[in-house]
Amino acid sequence: MTNIEACICTIGDEILIGQIVDTNSAFISSRLNEAGIKVASMVSIGDDFDQIIENLTRISRDFNVIIITGGLGPTKDDITKKALARFTGCNEYTTNSNQLEIIERIFEKRGMAVTQTNRDQAIVPANCVVIPNEKGTAPAMVFNIDSSTLLFSLPGVPYEMEALLPSVIDIINQNFSPRNICHRTVCTYGIPESTLSDMLTTWESSLPSGIKLAYLPNPATGIRLRLSTYNGDKNANLKLMDTCIQTLKEVLAPGIIYSEQDDNLESVVTRLLESSGMTVSVAESCTGGKISSVLVSKPGASNYYKGGIVTYSNDTKISILNVAPQTIENHGAVSLECASQMAEGCRLLFGTDIAISTTGIAGPGGGTDSKPVGSIWIAVSVRGKVKCTKSLFFGDRERNIIRFTSEALNFLRKELILIIDNKQLINKV
Amino acid sequence: MTNIEACICTIGDEILIGQIVDTNSAFISSRLNEAGIKVASMVSIGDDFDQIIENLTRISRDFNVIIITGGLGPTKDDITKKALARFTGCNEYTTNSNQLEIIERIFEKRGMAVTQTNRDQAIVPANCVVIPNEKGTAPAMVFNIDSSTLLFSLPGVPYEMEALLPSVIDIINQNFSPRNICHRTVCTYGIPESTLSDMLTTWESSLPSGIKLAYLPNPATGIRLRLSTYNGDKNANLKLMDTCIQTLKEVLAPGIIYSEQDDNLESVVTRLLESSGMTVSVAESCTGGKISSVLVSKPGASNYYKGGIVTYSNDTKISILNVAPQTIENHGAVSLECASQMAEGCRLLFGTDIAISTTGIAGPGGGTDSKPVGSIWIAVSVRGKVKCTKSLFFGDRERNIIRFTSEALNFLRKELILIIDNKQLINKV
Repeated sequence: MTNIEACICTIGDEILIGQIVDTNSAFISSRLNEAGIKVASMVSIGDDFDQIIENLTRISRDFNVIIITGGLGPTKDDITKKALARFTGCNEYTTNSNQLEIIERIFEKRGMAVTQTNRDQAIVPANCVVIPNEKGTAPAMVFNIDSSTLLFSLPGVPYEMEALLPSVIDIINQNFSPRNICHRTVCTYGIPESTLSDMLTTWESSLPSGIKLAYLPNPATGIRLRLSTYNGDKNANLKLMDTCIQTLKEVLAPGIIYSEQDDNLESVVTRLLESSGMTVSVAESCTGGKISSVLVSKPGASNYYKGGIVTYSNDTKISILNVAPQTIENHGAVSLECASQMAEGCRLLFGTDIAISTTGIAGPGGGTDSKPVGSIWIAVSVRGKVKCTKSLFFGDRERNIIRFTSEALNFLRKELILIIDNKQLINKV
Repeated sequence: MTNIEACICTIGDEILIGQIVDTNSAFISSRLNEAGIKVASMVSIGDDFDQIIENLTRISRDFNVIIITGGLGPTKDDITKKALARFTGCNEYTTNSNQLEIIERIFEKRGMAVTQTNRDQAIVPANCVVIPNEKGTAPAMVFNIDSSTLLFSLPGVPYEMEALLPSVIDIINQNFSPRNICHRTVCTYGIPESTLSDMLTTWESSLPSGIKLAYLPNPATGIRLRLSTYNGDKNANLKLMDTCIQTLKEVLAPGIIYSEQDDNLESVVTRLLESSGMTVSVAESCTGGKISSVLVSKPGASNYYKGGIVTYSNDTKISILNVAPQTIENHGAVSLECASQMAEGCRLLFGTDIAISTTGIAGPGGGTDSKPVGSIWIAVSVRGKVKCTKSLFFGDRERNIIRFTSEALNFLRKELILIIDNKQLINKV
């Protein structure tokens, strides 16, 4: 069997006019990749009958797996179902009883009446196989285009599409033999891309042929280094990439790599918090609640996260966090002194082992020569012992808030590693 | 001159394997649309020399504006520049002195040494026109493919690409006559898509031909209704769409439409806060800081937003927000009583006119029969007068937190409208 190559096709005018960001394609391709199915192309087209047919005709010549999302809503602008019937030469429609049952159940659960429009969502072209959608009203449809091509049509609602994807992958696996694609991703934080690239020149040129390296810069996660292989034995390739990562770790200073999985800072920080057994609280000024929000996004956050406060004015820094008025008078709110007192005040307020604080200038206004837009002080108090760090970034408001948040998480991460290392040292003695 | 049609082409393995979400395409197409340039297709391809050439060959046959992003980084995996030189048949490279100057300035400002890798970013194929990139090291390049086709290559870093785009649109305008594309978007909140669609059947069928309607559902913003015209006189079309929106407003109950622009709830809420002249604070449990974070994301937030608190445990609800222990004992933390006391406690803590509170169960754990996962109580205190509302959603943790946040913003929005209406009434009397 030849290598299977997939094309993801998103349908919707809202994508082409830029009204929504397509997150489905990334989700689908990451899951297909894990399953060894290479995504070789992604295409977005409008809610236009001729355009859909034209593109499907071209795509079905070049690829053997086509995954379409979108255009299955109950409203008149959604025409994917009709276009697929036409494309596959089918004039008959049928009601899928499984999906109809689900639709009725969903509306009953929500205490709402089922309308004809809702019921119509269970009608599909007679030539497709249905994968029922438990999370929504539009089912997934599978069409056999020819002996070597499968076409899947999934609803565009991310939450529904995500729940249907495992069944899609099962069907692909039953029909094709996926290849052994392997990726290993190492996450770094704190070194700019070009500097990192210079540091890694020798290592990079020593990589075995067949291993592809990519730099993935991102303001929230730092630069991730991705190693990939597309052919050969999966286990042998993974072992080979492991060796490459070991030599990489010898080149970079400890602490720069924060994960050897495709990860983000908050996941690493929450794992460290769990294993430290310590509780944390957050005092934010310029980050406006984002650090708390990122920590709380993880299930089980209540095990270690006790609370947070956003003191967006000097008054509340003084009245709630006990920052001394003279501190703000003498040093300003964006200062080592203020950040320290915020962290310690927060720790006492919430009664946690650790507290982290931020105070800075996200912009666009508020900067001065000595404290330009993009400046931030971060403090961490561990049972009353406070450490601070200062940074400067060069983005707009949104980007600065993201960078501030990551910088704070990274500072907290390094502190947690020290705490855990010390504990292990003490346990050994 | 024929209608121009654009194709956006993103380059990078990280997109095809789903490691990053492509936000650039949406940004570019929304700006091109505003400028009257129709984006008819979007394509994503890998960092593969042959694939880039093959796709550009096809795309340049079908479209007269091609906008490429990505693959211009300083590292070896980025090959777009070489592929463009080959595709346009150019063997000569030249250093762009403007860009070189910018590169040196950027590194000087950051107190870092410029490496040869950094300087190499200013080298471009000799046949292109450079648009200097003030925000980063890789310049934009413009290639004249033939008399009717322009190709633009932009860096993939969103922040840099966004700054370069106005120059790209200027060049397109100088070379083509863009059409008069018009969009009008009406934002609704609180009615499910299928119910809304049923309510609008008559209105929808009365829309003049030439006006295209689309439903855009989104858990954070509610359902937006987009009217579009692609041909004809711009002003006449806008006027026609205005009339349609007027009749739409007669069909829907007041309050359901929260904006007649392509907007989100937080923008509307912050505008209302500005015009009410009142200050606000936020007490969050299940939303974990997200409401604060969303309000602070807007520049000028300090004019009305004074602070927020995340009380993620019962203890801190009691000790910091003065919720009565019996309240939690008798009614639980997810209750009208607790939400009310949280809002009032928060208002007094921060000394604001208004406070909003949330307490609910985001999941996956923590639900009971009487208070299932997805339950939330929201309270708003306006100078001590408290109103509450209860809702139930059916998503996973991430989606529930988004819905909780929007629900709270919408509740606050409706309160603010009442306040402003009352004030105007009083002023009139």
